[in-house]
Amino acid sequence: MTLLSKVAKYPFTAEPFHCDFSHRLFIGHLGNHMLNAADYHSSERGYGMNYLNPLHKTWVLSRLAIEMTEMPHAYDKFNVATWVDGAMKYFTSRNFAVSSQDDGHVYGYGRSIWALIDTDSRQPTDILSIRNGLINEYIDTDTPCPISKPSRVQLSPDAPVVRTADVCYSDIDVNGHVNSVKYIEHVLDTFSIDDFKGRHIKRFEIAYVAESYYGDKLQFSHEQTGEDEHVVRIDKIAAGDNKPIEVCRSKVNFAKD
Amino acid sequence: MTLLSKVAKYPFTAEPFHCDFSHRLFIGHLGNHMLNAADYHSSERGYGMNYLNPLHKTWVLSRLAIEMTEMPHAYDKFNVATWVDGAMKYFTSRNFAVSSQDDGHVYGYGRSIWALIDTDSRQPTDILSIRNGLINEYIDTDTPCPISKPSRVQLSPDAPVVRTADVCYSDIDVNGHVNSVKYIEHVLDTFSIDDFKGRHIKRFEIAYVAESYYGDKLQFSHEQTGEDEHVVRIDKIAAGDNKPIEVCRSKVNFAKD
Repeated sequence: MTLLSKVAKYPFTAEPFHCDFSHRLFIGHLGNHMLNAADYHSSERGYGMNYLNPLHKTWVLSRLAIEMTEMPHAYDKFNVATWVDGAMKYFTSRNFAVSSQDDGHVYGYGRSIWALIDTDSRQPTDILSIRNGLINEYIDTDTPCPISKPSRVQLSPDAPVVRTADVCYSDIDVNGHVNSVKYIEHVLDTFSIDDFKGRHIKRFEIAYVAESYYGDKLQFSHEQTGEDEHVVRIDKIAAGDNKPIEVCRSKVNFAKD
Repeated sequence: MTLLSKVAKYPFTAEPFHCDFSHRLFIGHLGNHMLNAADYHSSERGYGMNYLNPLHKTWVLSRLAIEMTEMPHAYDKFNVATWVDGAMKYFTSRNFAVSSQDDGHVYGYGRSIWALIDTDSRQPTDILSIRNGLINEYIDTDTPCPISKPSRVQLSPDAPVVRTADVCYSDIDVNGHVNSVKYIEHVLDTFSIDDFKGRHIKRFEIAYVAESYYGDKLQFSHEQTGEDEHVVRIDKIAAGDNKPIEVCRSKVNFAKD
Protein backbone atom coordinates (compact mmCIF):
# COMPACT_ATOMS: atom_id res chain seq x y z
CA MET A 1 0.00 0.00 0.00
CA THR A 2 1.33 3.39 -0.99
CA LEU A 3 1.50 5.89 1.83
CA LEU A 4 0.48 9.48 1.34
CA SER A 5 2.41 12.45 2.71
CA LYS A 6 2.28 12.89 6.47
CA VAL A 7 1.28 16.53 6.19
CA ALA A 8 -1.55 17.67 3.93
CA LYS A 9 -2.99 21.11 3.44
CA TYR A 10 -6.49 22.17 2.47
CA PRO A 11 -7.60 25.49 0.99
CA PHE A 12 -10.21 27.71 2.63
CA THR A 13 -11.48 31.26 2.21
CA ALA A 14 -12.42 33.65 4.99
CA GLU A 15 -16.01 34.04 3.76
CA PRO A 16 -17.32 37.55 4.43
CA PHE A 17 -20.30 36.36 6.48
CA HIS A 18 -17.97 34.21 8.59
CA CYS A 19 -16.14 37.34 9.73
CA ASP A 20 -16.90 39.50 12.76
CA PHE A 21 -17.55 43.23 12.91
CA SER A 22 -13.78 43.86 12.62
CA HIS A 23 -13.72 41.88 9.34
CA ARG A 24 -11.61 39.13 10.93
CA LEU A 25 -12.62 35.49 10.62
CA PHE A 26 -14.59 34.29 13.67
CA ILE A 27 -12.33 31.88 15.56
CA GLY A 28 -15.21 29.36 15.65
CA HIS A 29 -15.22 29.21 11.86
CA LEU A 30 -11.43 28.81 11.86
CA GLY A 31 -11.92 25.94 14.32
CA ASN A 32 -14.48 24.43 11.96
CA HIS A 33 -11.99 24.61 9.08
CA MET A 34 -9.42 22.83 11.28
CA LEU A 35 -11.95 20.09 12.07
CA ASN A 36 -12.69 19.73 8.37
CA ALA A 37 -8.97 19.54 7.55
CA ALA A 38 -8.59 16.85 10.23
CA ASP A 39 -11.50 14.91 8.76
CA TYR A 40 -10.24 15.14 5.16
CA HIS A 41 -6.69 14.23 6.22
CA SER A 42 -7.73 11.18 8.23
CA SER A 43 -10.28 10.04 5.63
CA GLU A 44 -7.72 10.20 2.82
CA ARG A 45 -5.35 8.10 4.95
CA GLY A 46 -7.89 5.42 5.78
CA TYR A 47 -8.91 6.19 9.35
CA GLY A 48 -11.51 8.93 8.91
CA MET A 49 -15.13 9.12 10.04
CA ASN A 50 -16.32 7.67 6.72
CA TYR A 51 -14.37 4.46 7.44
CA LEU A 52 -14.93 4.39 11.22
CA ASN A 53 -18.63 5.23 11.48
CA PRO A 54 -19.82 2.00 9.80
CA LEU A 55 -17.60 0.20 12.36
CA HIS A 56 -19.48 2.06 15.14
CA LYS A 57 -16.48 4.17 16.03
CA THR A 58 -15.85 7.87 15.72
CA TRP A 59 -13.26 10.51 16.53
CA VAL A 60 -14.08 12.83 19.41
CA LEU A 61 -12.28 16.12 19.91
CA SER A 62 -10.91 16.30 23.42
CA ARG A 63 -8.84 19.48 23.41
CA LEU A 64 -8.16 22.28 20.98
CA ALA A 65 -5.76 25.20 21.26
CA ILE A 66 -5.47 27.88 18.58
CA GLU A 67 -2.82 30.57 18.71
CA MET A 68 -2.77 33.27 16.05
CA THR A 69 -0.35 36.09 15.35
CA GLU A 70 -2.89 37.35 12.83
CA MET A 71 -6.41 36.28 11.95
CA PRO A 72 -7.40 35.99 8.26
CA HIS A 73 -9.51 38.93 7.09
CA ALA A 74 -12.62 38.74 4.91
CA TYR A 75 -11.82 37.22 1.50
CA ASP A 76 -8.31 36.08 2.52
CA LYS A 77 -7.46 32.71 1.03
CA PHE A 78 -5.53 30.47 3.35
CA ASN A 79 -4.43 26.87 3.78
CA VAL A 80 -4.86 24.73 6.84
CA ALA A 81 -2.05 22.15 6.99
CA THR A 82 -2.49 19.29 9.40
CA TRP A 83 -0.54 16.28 10.64
CA VAL A 84 -0.58 13.82 13.52
CA ASP A 85 2.41 14.18 15.81
CA GLY A 86 1.62 11.41 18.27
CA ALA A 87 -0.66 8.39 18.72
CA MET A 88 -1.22 6.38 21.85
CA LYS A 89 -3.77 3.70 22.59
CA TYR A 90 -6.58 6.12 23.44
CA PHE A 91 -5.44 9.53 22.22
CA THR A 92 -3.82 11.12 19.20
CA SER A 93 -2.42 14.59 18.98
CA ARG A 94 -2.90 16.51 15.76
CA ASN A 95 -1.37 19.84 14.79
CA PHE A 96 -2.43 22.57 12.41
CA ALA A 97 -0.66 25.42 10.63
CA VAL A 98 -2.66 28.21 9.00
CA SER A 99 -0.87 30.08 6.21
CA SER A 100 -1.67 32.48 3.40
CA GLN A 101 -2.28 31.06 -0.07
CA ASP A 102 -0.92 34.29 -1.52
CA ASP A 103 2.49 34.72 0.11
CA GLY A 104 2.74 31.71 2.42
CA HIS A 105 3.05 33.74 5.61
CA VAL A 106 1.86 31.95 8.72
CA TYR A 107 -1.25 33.28 10.48
CA GLY A 108 -0.99 30.86 13.37
CA TYR A 109 -1.14 27.29 14.63
CA GLY A 110 -3.39 24.83 16.33
CA ARG A 111 -2.94 21.79 18.54
CA SER A 112 -5.61 19.22 19.27
CA ILE A 113 -6.12 15.97 21.14
CA TRP A 114 -8.58 13.37 19.89
CA ALA A 115 -10.01 10.17 21.35
CA LEU A 116 -11.51 7.34 19.37
CA ILE A 117 -14.77 6.11 20.88
CA ASP A 118 -17.18 3.28 20.33
CA THR A 119 -20.44 4.95 19.28
CA ASP A 120 -22.56 2.29 21.03
CA SER A 121 -20.86 2.32 24.44
CA ARG A 122 -19.43 5.89 24.10
CA GLN A 123 -16.26 4.43 25.66
CA PRO A 124 -12.70 4.95 24.39
CA THR A 125 -11.51 2.35 21.94
CA ASP A 126 -8.01 1.34 20.86
CA ILE A 127 -6.72 3.63 18.13
CA LEU A 128 -3.85 1.31 17.27
CA SER A 129 -6.26 -1.53 16.49
CA ILE A 130 -7.51 0.37 13.42
CA ARG A 131 -6.00 -1.10 10.24
CA ASN A 132 -3.16 -2.64 12.25
CA GLY A 133 -1.97 0.66 13.67
CA LEU A 134 -1.81 2.35 10.28
CA ILE A 135 -1.84 5.76 11.98
CA ASN A 136 1.70 5.02 13.24
CA GLU A 137 2.93 5.25 9.64
CA TYR A 138 1.81 8.86 9.60
CA ILE A 139 3.34 10.26 12.78
CA ASP A 140 5.30 13.40 12.00
CA THR A 141 7.37 14.84 14.83
CA ASP A 142 9.58 16.97 12.56
CA THR A 143 7.15 19.60 11.31
CA PRO A 144 7.23 22.45 13.81
CA CYS A 145 4.18 23.64 15.71
CA PRO A 146 5.65 26.41 17.87
CA ILE A 147 2.77 26.94 20.32
CA SER A 148 2.27 25.39 23.73
CA LYS A 149 0.14 22.33 24.22
CA PRO A 150 -3.40 22.68 25.55
CA SER A 151 -3.03 23.46 29.24
CA ARG A 152 -5.04 22.64 32.31
CA VAL A 153 -7.58 25.45 32.55
CA GLN A 154 -8.26 26.54 36.15
CA LEU A 155 -11.44 28.28 37.28
CA SER A 156 -12.65 29.33 40.74
CA PRO A 157 -15.53 27.21 42.00
CA ASP A 158 -17.47 30.42 42.61
CA ALA A 159 -17.02 31.93 39.13
CA PRO A 160 -20.37 33.61 38.39
CA VAL A 161 -22.90 32.26 35.90
CA VAL A 162 -23.27 35.06 33.35
CA ARG A 163 -25.56 33.51 30.75
CA THR A 164 -27.66 30.45 30.04
CA ALA A 165 -28.90 28.98 26.78
CA ASP A 166 -31.17 26.11 25.83
CA VAL A 167 -29.69 23.56 23.44
CA CYS A 168 -31.68 23.91 20.22
CA TYR A 169 -32.00 22.18 16.85
CA SER A 170 -29.22 24.27 15.24
CA ASP A 171 -26.73 23.25 17.95
CA ILE A 172 -26.89 19.53 17.17
CA ASP A 173 -24.65 18.18 14.43
CA VAL A 174 -24.32 14.85 12.58
CA ASN A 175 -23.04 13.24 15.77
CA GLY A 176 -26.34 13.91 17.56
CA HIS A 177 -24.79 16.12 20.23
CA VAL A 178 -23.87 19.78 20.50
CA ASN A 179 -21.34 20.67 17.83
CA SER A 180 -17.81 21.42 19.08
CA VAL A 181 -17.71 24.74 17.28
CA LYS A 182 -21.04 25.85 18.79
CA TYR A 183 -19.38 25.74 22.24
CA ILE A 184 -16.71 28.12 20.92
CA GLU A 185 -19.45 30.55 19.85
CA HIS A 186 -21.14 30.18 23.23
CA VAL A 187 -17.86 30.89 25.05
CA LEU A 188 -17.29 34.05 23.02
CA ASP A 189 -20.89 35.16 23.57
CA THR A 190 -20.17 35.49 27.30
CA PHE A 191 -17.99 38.49 26.38
CA SER A 192 -19.17 41.98 25.57
CA ILE A 193 -18.58 43.04 21.98
CA ASP A 194 -16.46 45.84 23.47
CA ASP A 195 -13.97 43.20 24.62
CA PHE A 196 -13.16 42.66 20.93
CA LYS A 197 -12.57 46.33 20.18
CA GLY A 198 -8.92 47.39 19.98
CA ARG A 199 -7.76 43.87 20.69
CA HIS A 200 -8.02 40.39 19.24
CA ILE A 201 -7.85 36.81 20.43
CA LYS A 202 -4.23 35.69 20.62
CA ARG A 203 -4.83 32.24 22.03
CA PHE A 204 -8.01 30.24 22.49
CA GLU A 205 -8.20 26.87 24.17
CA ILE A 206 -11.03 24.56 25.00
CA ALA A 207 -11.18 21.19 26.75
CA TYR A 208 -14.23 19.04 26.09
CA VAL A 209 -15.26 17.07 29.18
CA ALA A 210 -18.73 15.68 28.41
CA GLU A 211 -21.30 15.76 25.64
CA SER A 212 -24.53 17.73 25.81
CA TYR A 213 -27.77 17.03 24.03
CA TYR A 214 -30.99 18.54 22.74
CA GLY A 215 -33.13 19.63 25.70
CA ASP A 216 -30.19 20.37 28.00
CA LYS A 217 -29.80 23.84 29.40
CA LEU A 218 -26.26 25.20 29.19
CA GLN A 219 -24.94 27.63 31.75
CA PHE A 220 -21.83 29.71 31.31
CA SER A 221 -19.51 30.75 34.12
CA HIS A 222 -17.04 33.46 33.20
CA GLU A 223 -14.05 34.64 35.22
CA GLN A 224 -11.39 37.17 34.32
CA THR A 225 -8.05 35.72 35.41
CA GLY A 226 -5.64 38.36 34.11
CA GLU A 227 -5.62 41.70 32.31
CA ASP A 228 -6.15 39.96 28.98
CA GLU A 229 -7.10 36.49 30.16
CA HIS A 230 -10.55 35.04 30.75
CA VAL A 231 -11.77 31.55 31.60
CA VAL A 232 -15.23 30.23 30.76
CA ARG A 233 -16.80 26.99 31.95
CA ILE A 234 -19.91 25.51 30.35
CA ASP A 235 -22.12 23.23 32.44
CA LYS A 236 -25.20 21.39 31.30
CA ILE A 237 -28.38 20.81 33.24
CA ALA A 238 -30.38 17.96 31.78
CA ALA A 239 -34.17 18.32 31.50
CA GLY A 240 -35.83 17.38 34.80
CA ASP A 241 -32.54 17.62 36.63
CA ASN A 242 -30.98 20.49 38.53
CA LYS A 243 -27.40 19.39 38.98
CA PRO A 244 -24.92 21.14 36.68
CA ILE A 245 -22.44 18.80 34.99
CA GLU A 246 -19.32 20.24 33.41
CA VAL A 247 -19.29 20.06 29.60
CA CYS A 248 -16.21 22.05 28.68
CA ARG A 249 -13.89 24.78 29.87
CA SER A 250 -12.07 27.35 27.84
CA LYS A 251 -9.36 29.98 28.21
CA VAL A 252 -9.17 33.10 26.06
CA ASN A 253 -6.10 35.35 25.85
CA PHE A 254 -6.32 38.69 24.10
CA ALA A 255 -3.61 40.90 22.63
CA LYS A 256 -3.82 44.57 21.76
CA ASP A 257 -4.31 45.32 18.05
CA MET B 1 -15.41 45.86 -21.92
CA THR B 2 -15.95 42.12 -22.25
CA LEU B 3 -19.03 40.83 -20.52
CA LEU B 4 -18.98 37.61 -18.54
CA SER B 5 -21.69 34.95 -18.67
CA LYS B 6 -24.99 35.91 -17.08
CA VAL B 7 -25.12 32.73 -15.01
CA ALA B 8 -22.17 31.56 -12.95
CA LYS B 9 -21.89 28.60 -10.65
CA TYR B 10 -19.73 28.08 -7.59
CA PRO B 11 -18.70 24.79 -5.97
CA PHE B 12 -19.47 23.96 -2.34
CA THR B 13 -19.34 20.89 -0.14
CA ALA B 14 -21.87 19.92 2.52
CA GLU B 15 -19.32 19.94 5.33
CA PRO B 16 -20.11 17.30 7.95
CA PHE B 17 -20.30 19.78 10.82
CA HIS B 18 -22.67 21.95 8.78
CA CYS B 19 -25.18 19.09 8.71
CA ASP B 20 -27.94 18.38 11.19
CA PHE B 21 -28.65 15.20 13.14
CA SER B 22 -30.22 13.67 9.99
CA HIS B 23 -26.94 14.29 8.07
CA ARG B 24 -28.65 16.86 5.85
CA LEU B 25 -27.10 20.28 5.31
CA PHE B 26 -28.59 22.90 7.66
CA ILE B 27 -30.69 25.24 5.51
CA GLY B 28 -28.91 28.21 7.14
CA HIS B 29 -25.58 27.01 5.77
CA LEU B 30 -27.17 26.51 2.35
CA GLY B 31 -28.44 30.09 2.62
CA ASN B 32 -24.92 31.21 3.46
CA HIS B 33 -23.56 29.47 0.36
CA MET B 34 -26.20 31.27 -1.73
CA LEU B 35 -25.17 34.62 -0.23
CA ASN B 36 -21.54 33.81 -1.03
CA ALA B 37 -22.43 32.84 -4.58
CA ALA B 38 -24.32 36.14 -4.95
CA ASP B 39 -21.31 38.03 -3.61
CA TYR B 40 -18.81 36.26 -5.90
CA HIS B 41 -21.11 36.65 -8.92
CA SER B 42 -21.70 40.37 -8.40
CA SER B 43 -18.04 41.07 -7.51
CA GLU B 44 -16.77 39.36 -10.67
CA ARG B 45 -19.21 41.47 -12.72
CA GLY B 46 -18.18 44.78 -11.18
CA TYR B 47 -21.00 45.58 -8.76
CA GLY B 48 -20.08 43.53 -5.70
CA MET B 49 -19.49 44.59 -2.10
CA ASN B 50 -15.75 45.00 -2.75
CA TYR B 51 -16.53 47.74 -5.32
CA LEU B 52 -19.54 49.25 -3.54
CA ASN B 53 -18.32 49.43 0.06
CA PRO B 54 -15.60 52.04 -0.66
CA LEU B 55 -18.42 54.06 -2.32
CA HIS B 56 -20.40 53.79 0.95
CA LYS B 57 -22.96 51.50 -0.59
CA THR B 58 -23.82 47.88 0.08
CA TRP B 59 -26.28 45.19 -0.94
CA VAL B 60 -28.93 44.30 1.61
CA LEU B 61 -30.90 41.08 1.38
CA SER B 62 -34.60 41.84 1.50
CA ARG B 63 -36.24 38.47 0.84
CA LEU B 64 -35.05 34.92 0.38
CA ALA B 65 -37.01 31.81 -0.56
CA ILE B 66 -35.43 28.36 -0.81
CA GLU B 67 -37.34 25.36 -2.10
CA MET B 68 -35.67 21.97 -2.13
CA THR B 69 -36.76 18.61 -3.48
CA GLU B 70 -33.75 17.15 -1.68
CA MET B 71 -31.17 18.61 0.67
CA PRO B 72 -27.46 17.81 0.13
CA HIS B 73 -26.19 15.21 2.60
CA ALA B 74 -22.87 15.31 4.46
CA TYR B 75 -19.92 15.30 2.02
CA ASP B 76 -22.12 15.90 -1.06
CA LYS B 77 -20.43 18.24 -3.50
CA PHE B 78 -22.80 20.65 -5.16
CA ASN B 79 -22.85 23.81 -7.24
CA VAL B 80 -24.82 26.94 -6.56
CA ALA B 81 -25.61 28.69 -9.86
CA THR B 82 -26.87 32.25 -9.65
CA TRP B 83 -28.11 34.95 -11.97
CA VAL B 84 -30.04 38.21 -11.81
CA ASP B 85 -33.45 38.01 -13.48
CA GLY B 86 -34.59 41.58 -12.90
CA ALA B 87 -33.29 44.99 -11.86
CA MET B 88 -35.29 48.07 -10.98
CA LYS B 89 -34.20 51.36 -9.45
CA TYR B 90 -34.23 50.08 -5.85
CA PHE B 91 -34.46 46.30 -6.06
CA THR B 92 -32.94 43.43 -7.96
CA SER B 93 -34.15 39.86 -8.02
CA ARG B 94 -31.57 37.10 -8.07
CA ASN B 95 -32.16 33.38 -8.53
CA PHE B 96 -30.23 30.29 -7.48
CA ALA B 97 -30.12 26.68 -8.63
CA VAL B 98 -28.45 24.03 -6.48
CA SER B 99 -27.24 20.94 -8.34
CA SER B 100 -25.00 17.96 -7.79
CA GLN B 101 -21.39 18.16 -8.97
CA ASP B 102 -21.48 14.41 -9.54
CA ASP B 103 -24.50 13.81 -11.75
CA GLY B 104 -25.92 17.31 -12.23
CA HIS B 105 -29.29 16.53 -10.66
CA VAL B 106 -31.06 19.53 -9.16
CA TYR B 107 -31.50 19.64 -5.39
CA GLY B 108 -33.58 22.80 -5.45
CA TYR B 109 -33.80 26.51 -6.15
CA GLY B 110 -33.71 29.86 -4.47
CA ARG B 111 -35.14 33.30 -5.17
CA SER B 112 -34.02 36.50 -3.52
CA ILE B 113 -34.68 40.23 -3.56
CA TRP B 114 -31.91 42.71 -2.80
CA ALA B 115 -31.82 46.44 -2.19
CA LEU B 116 -28.79 48.67 -2.59
CA ILE B 117 -28.38 51.06 0.33
CA ASP B 118 -26.20 53.98 1.22
CA THR B 119 -24.20 52.86 4.27
CA ASP B 120 -24.18 56.38 5.75
CA SER B 121 -27.90 57.16 5.48
CA ARG B 122 -29.04 53.47 5.40
CA GLN B 123 -31.48 54.64 2.69
CA PRO B 124 -32.08 52.89 -0.66
CA THR B 125 -29.89 54.12 -3.48
CA ASP B 126 -30.28 53.83 -7.24
CA ILE B 127 -29.00 50.49 -8.49
CA LEU B 128 -29.01 51.63 -12.12
CA SER B 129 -26.62 54.49 -11.31
CA ILE B 130 -23.84 51.98 -10.63
CA ARG B 131 -21.42 51.83 -13.57
CA ASN B 132 -24.08 53.30 -15.87
CA GLY B 133 -26.58 50.54 -15.24
CA LEU B 134 -24.09 47.76 -15.95
CA ILE B 135 -26.33 45.28 -14.13
CA ASN B 136 -28.84 45.59 -17.00
CA GLU B 137 -26.31 43.82 -19.25
CA TYR B 138 -26.59 40.79 -17.01
CA ILE B 139 -30.36 40.29 -16.73
CA ASP B 140 -31.24 36.70 -17.59
CA THR B 141 -34.96 35.94 -17.87
CA ASP B 142 -34.43 32.70 -19.84
CA THR B 143 -32.86 30.42 -17.24
CA PRO B 144 -35.72 28.69 -15.42
CA CYS B 145 -36.28 28.99 -11.67
CA PRO B 146 -39.42 26.90 -11.21
CA ILE B 147 -40.39 27.95 -7.67
CA SER B 148 -42.77 30.69 -6.58
CA LYS B 149 -41.56 34.12 -5.66
CA PRO B 150 -41.20 35.07 -2.01
CA SER B 151 -44.73 35.62 -0.78
CA ARG B 152 -46.32 37.92 1.76
CA VAL B 153 -46.05 36.02 5.05
CA GLN B 154 -49.12 36.47 7.27
CA LEU B 155 -49.08 36.01 11.03
CA SER B 156 -51.78 36.55 13.67
CA PRO B 157 -51.14 39.60 15.84
CA ASP B 158 -51.53 37.33 18.90
CA ALA B 159 -49.06 34.64 17.83
CA PRO B 160 -47.32 33.60 21.07
CA VAL B 161 -43.73 34.54 21.92
CA VAL B 162 -41.99 31.17 22.33
CA ARG B 163 -38.38 32.16 22.88
CA THR B 164 -36.13 35.17 23.37
CA ALA B 165 -32.40 35.63 22.77
CA ASP B 166 -29.94 38.42 23.39
CA VAL B 167 -27.93 39.55 20.38
CA CYS B 168 -24.34 38.54 21.09
CA TYR B 169 -20.87 38.98 19.58
CA SER B 170 -21.20 35.88 17.36
CA ASP B 171 -24.41 37.18 15.77
CA ILE B 172 -22.82 40.33 14.33
CA ASP B 173 -21.13 40.07 10.93
CA VAL B 174 -18.92 42.35 8.83
CA ASN B 175 -21.88 44.67 8.26
CA GLY B 176 -22.13 45.45 11.97
CA HIS B 177 -25.63 44.03 12.36
CA VAL B 178 -27.11 40.60 12.95
CA ASN B 179 -26.10 38.27 10.14
CA SER B 180 -28.93 37.24 7.77
CA VAL B 181 -28.17 33.56 8.25
CA LYS B 182 -28.25 33.83 12.05
CA TYR B 183 -31.94 34.79 11.78
CA ILE B 184 -32.54 31.56 9.86
CA GLU B 185 -30.94 29.60 12.72
CA HIS B 186 -33.04 31.53 15.22
CA VAL B 187 -36.24 30.76 13.28
CA LEU B 188 -35.45 27.04 13.20
CA ASP B 189 -34.58 27.06 16.89
CA THR B 190 -38.22 27.92 17.69
CA PHE B 191 -39.05 24.38 16.54
CA SER B 192 -38.63 21.19 18.52
CA ILE B 193 -36.02 18.83 17.12
CA ASP B 194 -38.89 16.31 16.80
CA ASP B 195 -40.39 18.56 14.11
CA PHE B 196 -37.43 17.57 11.94
CA LYS B 197 -37.87 13.82 12.46
CA GLY B 198 -39.55 11.96 9.60
CA ARG B 199 -39.87 15.14 7.58
CA HIS B 200 -37.71 17.84 6.08
CA ILE B 201 -38.01 21.47 5.07
CA LYS B 202 -39.53 21.72 1.61
CA ARG B 203 -39.69 25.50 1.40
CA PHE B 204 -38.23 28.20 3.60
CA GLU B 205 -38.84 31.90 3.16
CA ILE B 206 -37.78 34.92 5.08
CA ALA B 207 -38.47 38.63 4.64
CA TYR B 208 -36.06 41.05 6.28
CA VAL B 209 -37.82 44.16 7.55
CA ALA B 210 -35.32 45.95 9.81
CA GLU B 211 -31.78 45.50 11.09
CA SER B 212 -30.95 44.49 14.65
CA TYR B 213 -27.81 45.24 16.60
CA TYR B 214 -25.61 44.15 19.48
CA GLY B 215 -27.47 44.69 22.74
CA ASP B 216 -30.94 44.16 21.26
CA LYS B 217 -33.12 41.42 22.65
CA LEU B 218 -34.82 39.30 19.99
CA GLN B 219 -38.17 37.70 20.60
CA PHE B 220 -39.62 34.96 18.47
CA SER B 221 -43.34 34.48 17.83
CA HIS B 222 -44.26 31.13 16.32
CA GLU B 223 -47.59 30.09 14.85
CA GLN B 224 -48.57 26.88 13.12
CA THR B 225 -50.68 27.82 10.10
CA GLY B 226 -51.19 24.40 8.49
CA GLU B 227 -50.41 20.74 9.02
CA ASP B 228 -46.88 21.25 7.71
CA GLU B 229 -46.70 25.06 7.71
CA HIS B 230 -45.37 27.36 10.40
CA VAL B 231 -44.77 31.09 10.51
CA VAL B 232 -42.19 32.78 12.76
CA ARG B 233 -41.81 36.50 13.39
CA ILE B 234 -38.71 38.00 14.99
CA ASP B 235 -39.02 41.30 16.83
CA LYS B 236 -36.24 43.27 18.44
CA ILE B 237 -36.39 45.21 21.68
CA ALA B 238 -33.59 47.73 21.89
CA ALA B 239 -31.74 48.17 25.21
CA GLY B 240 -33.66 50.59 27.45
CA ASP B 241 -36.77 50.26 25.32
CA ASN B 242 -39.75 47.97 25.65
CA LYS B 243 -41.47 48.31 22.32
CA PRO B 244 -40.97 45.34 19.99
CA ILE B 245 -40.07 46.29 16.42
CA GLU B 246 -40.41 43.72 13.67
CA VAL B 247 -37.08 42.53 12.26
CA CYS B 248 -38.11 39.69 9.98
CA ARG B 249 -40.78 37.10 9.34
CA SER B 250 -40.41 33.65 7.97
CA LYS B 251 -42.55 30.77 6.70
CA VAL B 252 -41.47 27.13 6.87
CA ASN B 253 -43.15 24.33 4.94
CA PHE B 254 -42.30 20.73 5.69
CA ALA B 255 -42.73 17.58 3.60
CA LYS B 256 -42.72 13.97 4.78
CA ASP B 257 -39.44 12.12 4.20
